[in-house]
Amino acid sequence: MSNVETLRCAFCEIAAGALPAYIVYESEDILAFLDTRPLFPGHVLLCPREHYTTLPDLPRRLAGPLMEAAQLLAQAVESALEAEGTFVAINNRVSQTVPHLHIHVIPRRRRDGLRGFFWPRQQYQDESAREAVRHAIEIEVKKLLE
Amino acid sequence: MSNVETLRCAFCEIAAGALPAYIVYESEDILAFLDTRPLFPGHVLLCPREHYTTLPDLPRRLAGPLMEAAQLLAQAVESALEAEGTFVAINNRVSQTVPHLHIHVIPRRRRDGLRGFFWPRQQYQDESAREAVRHAIEIEVKKLLE
Repeated sequence: MSNVETLRCAFCEIAAGALPAYIVYESEDILAFLDTRPLFPGHVLLCPREHYTTLPDLPRRLAGPLMEAAQLLAQAVESALEAEGTFVAINNRVSQTVPHLHIHVIPRRRRDGLRGFFWPRQQYQDESAREAVRHAIEIEVKKLLE
Repeated sequence: MSNVETLRCAFCEIAAGALPAYIVYESEDILAFLDTRPLFPGHVLLCPREHYTTLPDLPRRLAGPLMEAAQLLAQAVESALEAEGTFVAINNRVSQTVPHLHIHVIPRRRRDGLRGFFWPRQQYQDESAREAVRHAIEIEVKKLLE
């Protein structure tokens, strides 16, 4: 993380108090505020105060606090908006507009017009194609855990 | 959690070894396997072995382990599929097809056709509408933290 990157990062500026935001929750490590262009009113963005780009970049000590904050905000957004459920999502790099890790927490209602990610699903071509993918992921997991 | 609910839950059956699955990772508390109808090949579902319906239902002791597993799988899926990024998402109740908390980890590439959640965004009608929503969420957060 360079100073230049941090200075230019909108979420770092919000965390530093240099940019205003519609804050709904903050702790020592975490900040949550309204998305200014919500998918639905009550769409919240939750991020660590420190600058990390993607979910895998987050240090282990912040994993629990960030997940607990996501649980808290999912419950609070659902209650506050009298919603029927929530959508909780992270874009890592692709479709990520601000390169500072953030979790979207979005209130949902049945037939709210959001297709979720029920875009056309695929099938694996055959059993061996599926096994090849399964094995490749398993190998990467093992490498990462070594 | 009733026994009946658990017995009928596909993910509980996978966790119990009663239903086969294309497992890519497992630990004492967490299980990850291929979605059989992937959005893209390498689409993984990550869930706690124990039955909890939504993210807020997850006990605090599992928040850190589940988030760390999401970090691990996001990295492993991206590497294994030679992807450019990942989409990590949870449907709580609405659009949730299996009522056992699970995190989707999906490999992403630029121009992969997935619209992400860049469906038409809204604007708050005015400043007071936005402040009303912000305040309502803040109040719920405070109630939950009391």
